[in-house]
Amino acid sequence: MATCVFCDIVGGRAPARTVYRDDHVVGFLDIRPVTRGHTLLIPREHSSGLADLDPDMGGRLFAAGQRVAAAMKSGALGADGVNLVVNDGRAAFQTVFHTHLHVVPRHNGDKLSFAKGLVVRRDPDPDQTAELLRVALEPDHR
Amino acid sequence: MATCVFCDIVGGRAPARTVYRDDHVVGFLDIRPVTRGHTLLIPREHSSGLADLDPDMGGRLFAAGQRVAAAMKSGALGADGVNLVVNDGRAAFQTVFHTHLHVVPRHNGDKLSFAKGLVVRRDPDPDQTAELLRVALEPDHR
Repeated sequence: MATCVFCDIVGGRAPARTVYRDDHVVGFLDIRPVTRGHTLLIPREHSSGLADLDPDMGGRLFAAGQRVAAAMKSGALGADGVNLVVNDGRAAFQTVFHTHLHVVPRHNGDKLSFAKGLVVRRDPDPDQTAELLRVALEPDHR
Repeated sequence: MATCVFCDIVGGRAPARTVYRDDHVVGFLDIRPVTRGHTLLIPREHSSGLADLDPDMGGRLFAAGQRVAAAMKSGALGADGVNLVVNDGRAAFQTVFHTHLHVVPRHNGDKLSFAKGLVVRRDPDPDQTAELLRVALEPDHR
């Protein structure tokens, strides 16, 4: 079986700034964030996309998305809104073929920096960003 | 209580090209589609966004998204990929404050027409598009 970088993250064989864990889902910062705090949530169990994702697992993934979105708003990231996005298939911009839900924090009036973020995709201090999210997500992280 | 146009669609008081129904979720074509077949899935029960959406309902919404995505690929729309998107909050481009999941069919190489679609958002024959999706979603529509 070919290796999957997201399975490696779940298994602790690849590094990631994890911010969320439950029995079925793991969340970590996107290494190329569109906005600061951009998080990827993935089922621990491998599936390549929506077609082979168990619907119960899809529900758990979405529920985790709601929790992370709430923490982005209530915590130090101070998000005013959030985009939840699944890109399913190469045609839809999927690049890693382990199902993942993007959770992208947004701020009022960030339209231009959001557009810039789609191109630049860089956080100057991701360790601090991860820590802010972990604190906001207690006890979902530890 | 202020009226909600999506509650009116659920209640049959406002017109919509419905393509999907189950006990908890209704799906209909976006009147300003980014791509042909762009569908909105909404819980029948009102919530304004992720914060007041019951997590079980969120799971059902996501499961419906998987079903509609599958039909977009298997049916006459012939999608190669799909974007599932929730815009939560005005900062995140939410414009109707009844929680909804966008299901956007994508095709290989459609990057430019997708970008154009974000601006133009028009389907020259939405009735035919709805019928193609309904057929692909049988028996989820009737």
